[in-house]
Amino acid sequence: MPTLILVRHGQSRWNLENRFTGWWDVDLTEQGVAEARAAGELLEKTGLLPTCAFTSLQTRAIKTLHLALEACGRLWIPEVKHWRLNERHYGGLTGLNKAETAEKHGEEQVRIWRRSFDIPPPEMEAGSPYALSADPRYAGIPVPATESLKLTIERVLPYWESAILPALAQGETVLVSAHGNSLRALVKHLSGISDAEIAALEIPTGQPIVYDFDAALQAGERHYLKDR
Amino acid sequence: MPTLILVRHGQSRWNLENRFTGWWDVDLTEQGVAEARAAGELLEKTGLLPTCAFTSLQTRAIKTLHLALEACGRLWIPEVKHWRLNERHYGGLTGLNKAETAEKHGEEQVRIWRRSFDIPPPEMEAGSPYALSADPRYAGIPVPATESLKLTIERVLPYWESAILPALAQGETVLVSAHGNSLRALVKHLSGISDAEIAALEIPTGQPIVYDFDAALQAGERHYLKDR
Repeated sequence: MPTLILVRHGQSRWNLENRFTGWWDVDLTEQGVAEARAAGELLEKTGLLPTCAFTSLQTRAIKTLHLALEACGRLWIPEVKHWRLNERHYGGLTGLNKAETAEKHGEEQVRIWRRSFDIPPPEMEAGSPYALSADPRYAGIPVPATESLKLTIERVLPYWESAILPALAQGETVLVSAHGNSLRALVKHLSGISDAEIAALEIPTGQPIVYDFDAALQAGERHYLKDR
Repeated sequence: MPTLILVRHGQSRWNLENRFTGWWDVDLTEQGVAEARAAGELLEKTGLLPTCAFTSLQTRAIKTLHLALEACGRLWIPEVKHWRLNERHYGGLTGLNKAETAEKHGEEQVRIWRRSFDIPPPEMEAGSPYALSADPRYAGIPVPATESLKLTIERVLPYWESAILPALAQGETVLVSAHGNSLRALVKHLSGISDAEIAALEIPTGQPIVYDFDAALQAGERHYLKDR
């Protein structure tokens, strides 16, 4: 039967520094590398071996995918990368750490941006060092100026429908290596979580989350592979 | 203009032990990892940055691709893996080192198998520890029992025509990470090398070989990127 495995990338350098990262391309830390390998080892140990994979255009998710696939002997499966699986774009908050953001915008405002469903942060300023207009990876792609969680979900779900769900319909065991908010989009959709609750749902790094599907492509309960 | 970059995987464990490897899946050595990174660093330094990539189903070529792409900041480009880019299948020689092969078959016979164009080694024996019939990566794929260089070329070129050439026709800078003999197939085709000469042409590990194409998709002279 079709199975979906979601993995959030291992710890990145800016996770560690507590900076808003979004679409900025930051590498894994050593701990992040270890988390990615451990995710693959758990797939190997439980015999839940992916047959195809999807990831974002961001190094931390791609490397997590490759490290996990190597650890479970599945480097050879097809993989597809797509910007719709990228992290939420944090607009003008990109690059700021917690203290800098609070100083610039106030703690209460930051809490609102972090935890609201549909209020996006301010747009990225012109001339920001984190602008992506010159990055060839995003040539021809509608890079957002900022995104709420709602906007993130709205660009993830068309890719779910057009690419990931069809792979499940073929009976594949699909591994998606992505980001906190692009994975929230999928979990919200599959587990029917409300707009009010989804922002508070934590997706831990490097912990495979599994959905089994029935023949009618209905998702069962989500669970952590480590608890199986 | 379209450009083709060929890279033979870095040193593998069985390159080091001088064993016939073929389709058996052997990992890179530390030196092989360093060679793959150096290939990517050369792409970065020369500004010859791939926009899409092809590789085989074998770990040593896939890891070489990933290490090279990471070193030149291009992990995000599309990559496609296909068995037609696999190494030549060495049949019953798989797993034997130079001394074992000479002892079993005689030095002269080994020279003939290594250097002839169209004489395949003996087929892999039933029950060989190197049989791939149970390997899920080759489910549905016509795994050869043995291959001459001629047979290898005959299964590589259809993939050249159906997948790689169309990418070049789109103006892509295509990186192919593959194996000594699957790359010989492409070099023979593109540089018009004779049947008599191709087996003796050495493809060094981790050294990017470049072909520039004109608008009519005719390949220019091949050269090593390091000599540019």
